[in-house]
Amino acid sequence: MKICVLPGDGIGPEITAEAVRVLRALDLKFELEEALLGGCAVDATGQPYPEATSKLARAADAVLLGAVGGPKWDTLPREQRPERGLLAIRKELGLFANLRPAILYPELANASSLKPEVVAGLDILIVRELTGDIYFGQPRGIEQRDGERYGFNTMHYTESEIRRILRVAFEAARKRNKKLCSVDKMNVLETTQLWRDVANELAPEYPDVELTHMLVDNAAMQLVRAPKQFDVMVTGNMFGDILSDEASMLTGSIGMLPSASLDEHNKGLYEPSHGSAPDIAGQGVANPLATILSAAMLLRYTFGLEEAAQRVEGAVKKVLAQGYRTGDIFEPGTKKVGTREMGDAVLAAL
Amino acid sequence: MKICVLPGDGIGPEITAEAVRVLRALDLKFELEEALLGGCAVDATGQPYPEATSKLARAADAVLLGAVGGPKWDTLPREQRPERGLLAIRKELGLFANLRPAILYPELANASSLKPEVVAGLDILIVRELTGDIYFGQPRGIEQRDGERYGFNTMHYTESEIRRILRVAFEAARKRNKKLCSVDKMNVLETTQLWRDVANELAPEYPDVELTHMLVDNAAMQLVRAPKQFDVMVTGNMFGDILSDEASMLTGSIGMLPSASLDEHNKGLYEPSHGSAPDIAGQGVANPLATILSAAMLLRYTFGLEEAAQRVEGAVKKVLAQGYRTGDIFEPGTKKVGTREMGDAVLAAL
Ligand SMILES: CC(C)[C@H](C(=O)O)[C@@H](O)C(=O)O
Ligand SMILES: CC(C)[C@H](C(=O)O)[C@@H](O)C(=O)O
Repeated sequence: MKICVLPGDGIGPEITAEAVRVLRALDLKFELEEALLGGCAVDATGQPYPEATSKLARAADAVLLGAVGGPKWDTLPREQRPERGLLAIRKELGLFANLRPAILYPELANASSLKPEVVAGLDILIVRELTGDIYFGQPRGIEQRDGERYGFNTMHYTESEIRRILRVAFEAARKRNKKLCSVDKMNVLETTQLWRDVANELAPEYPDVELTHMLVDNAAMQLVRAPKQFDVMVTGNMFGDILSDEASMLTGSIGMLPSASLDEHNKGLYEPSHGSAPDIAGQGVANPLATILSAAMLLRYTFGLEEAAQRVEGAVKKVLAQGYRTGDIFEPGTKKVGTREMGDAVLAAL
Repeated sequence: MKICVLPGDGIGPEITAEAVRVLRALDLKFELEEALLGGCAVDATGQPYPEATSKLARAADAVLLGAVGGPKWDTLPREQRPERGLLAIRKELGLFANLRPAILYPELANASSLKPEVVAGLDILIVRELTGDIYFGQPRGIEQRDGERYGFNTMHYTESEIRRILRVAFEAARKRNKKLCSVDKMNVLETTQLWRDVANELAPEYPDVELTHMLVDNAAMQLVRAPKQFDVMVTGNMFGDILSDEASMLTGSIGMLPSASLDEHNKGLYEPSHGSAPDIAGQGVANPLATILSAAMLLRYTFGLEEAAQRVEGAVKKVLAQGYRTGDIFEPGTKKVGTREMGDAVLAAL
C-alpha cells in the first residue's frame, strides 16, 4: 500500500504532516514517500510537476496532496505556474472523477453565512468531471488575428467520457439518498446537450436513482436558495469548478472539506478543498482537518478500508465535539488550537 | 421615442402590461408597439424571433421584454426553442453590455436565505458581456468521431470585445463606489488570460477606479461568503450567466431585479432578471416590479431621462414601504396583492 505524499506550497506542508501522522497511527503498514508538486517543485527543478514526482505518483496506489500555489509564482510563464502541476498530475493519472462533499458539521453551523434553517444538516456530494472539458480542450491559445489579439479555448466531451463520470455519480447516489441532479447548459451549449442526452440514456440502468436536470445558472441560484434539495450533483469540469466551490462555501467552513479525484481503478489523489493560504503559511495555525478527512477518503476509496476511514472521521467529529477549533472555525466558548495541537487531538481521539 | 414591447411567454404578458401602464402614465409621448418573441412567436410563425419582430426591434430605440420559454416548447428542435429568440435578438441588435443589479431592499431583507448581517444593504452591479464567448463561438456542434458522439463548443474573445465591455464596467464603477472586480479563469483558460491582460492595460485610463481580479471559482465562493465586498463585477458571457444569477438569488427576491442589455449607442433591451414562471402564468399573481424597474432602466439608459427613472424607482420603493407584496415576497403583516393591484399601487405612488 504505497502512498505518495505531496505537501506542496503554503500551508500544504503543515497540514499534510498532520494527516501523515494520522495515517501512521493507524498502523496499517503504508509505505509513504514524499515528492514535490507546485511552486516548491518549480523552485527546486524549474517544473511544477517534475519527472521524479510523476514517477513516484505513477508507482503509488494513492496520492495525498496538501495544496499548491502562491503569489510568489503568479508572474511565471503559464507553463511554470504551480496549478499546471495540478492539472498535469490529474491528466497523467487519469483522475477523471472528482468527489467533493459539502457537509455542514452541526458544531460549526454558525460559520455559515446562510441562515441556520437553510443549511442545517447540509450534505451534498458534488461529482465533477476532472480530465476533460474546456480545461484540456484543443485548439486553444492567444493569437494575432485581423490586427488584434484573439483568445480561444475549446469545450468538448465524448459520450464515453460523459458516461463514465455519470456512472460514478449514479453509483454514489445509489449509496446515498438516491437523487442525482445533472447540471448542464443544454439550451446554449451543444457539448452539454450531449451530456444531457447521455445522462437520459443511462438513467434506465439505475431505476432506483431519481435523475433530474438543471441548468447551471439555475443550479448556482438553487444552491443559495435551498441547498438541501440536493443529494448528489454531477457536472463537467468547468461548471464543477464553480459549483463545487460555491457549495463548499455554503458550509462556511471549507477548512473542513476533503476531496478525492479517482481514476477507473480507484487509484486516487486526495486533497483538501481549500487552497494553500499563503497568508498564514508557516505559522502553525492552519486547519489540518480537511486534509485528515482527505486521508479518510483515501482509506475508503483506494484501499477499501471503510472501518479505518470511519475511525478517522469519527475522531474528527469527536475533536469538534470536544470544542477544539483552529482559527478559521473558532468561536468564543471553544478551545483555540494550532495545526499541531489539532493533529494531537485527532490522534488522541483515535 | 419608440419602444418595442415583447411580452413573451408565461407571466410575460401580465408583467409587461403593468410596466407599460407605468410608462404611459409618465406622459412622455412614447410610441409603443408590441411584437412576438419566444414560444408565442414559435406558435404563431414557427420562428422564435420572426422577421416582423426583428424589423420592429431594429427600428425601435428600446425594447421592453417580459420573459420567454416554458415546458411546452422544451422538446422542439434547438433552432425553434424560445431562448434561441432571445440569443438572436441580443446578437442582432449588438446588445453586448448586460447590466444586472443585485440590490436588497431593506423591506425584503427577510426573503434572503443569507444572514441579515451578510446581505443588509447589498448593492452589486454585475456587468456581463452578452454577445460573445462560448455562447456564439464557432465551431460548435455534436458529431460522430471515432465511432461515438462528440460535443464541442468554442470560447473566444477578441481584445476589442473585451475592451468595450470593460469600458462600460469602468464607467459604471466610476459612478458608484469606484471598485471594479474583473472575474476570469486565467489560470486555466487563455481566453480569460487575454481578458485579464486587457483589463490591466485599460486600468491606467481609470485611475479613480480600483481594479481587482478574481478567479471565477473564488468569485462564486466570495458571493456567498461576503457579497458586500463587491461594488461592480465584470465578466464574460458564460461566467456572467452563472454569477449574475447567483448574485441575484442572494437577495432572495429576484422578482424585484431588473436588467438592461445595451449596444454601443445606448439602444437597449430591458427585461426582469427572473424567468417566465409558467407555473403561475395567467393567474394574475406574478410580481411586476422587476419589469417596472426594467422600464426605469430603459428611461435612464436609452433616453437619458434620469428624473423619470428615479420617479419610477421611488414609486416602487414607496409601495414596498406601504406594505404591498405579491405572493413571491409576501410575509405575514404585509398586504398581499396581485399583479394588477401592484401595478395600481405603483401608479398611485407615481
Ligand atoms: C488551481 C485550479 C487549476 C483548480 C481547477 O480549476 O481545477 C482548482 O480551482 C480546483 O478546483 O482544484
Ligand atoms: C435563456 C438563456 C439562453 C439565457 C442565457 O443563458 O443568457 C438566460 O439564462 C439569461 O441569463 O438571460
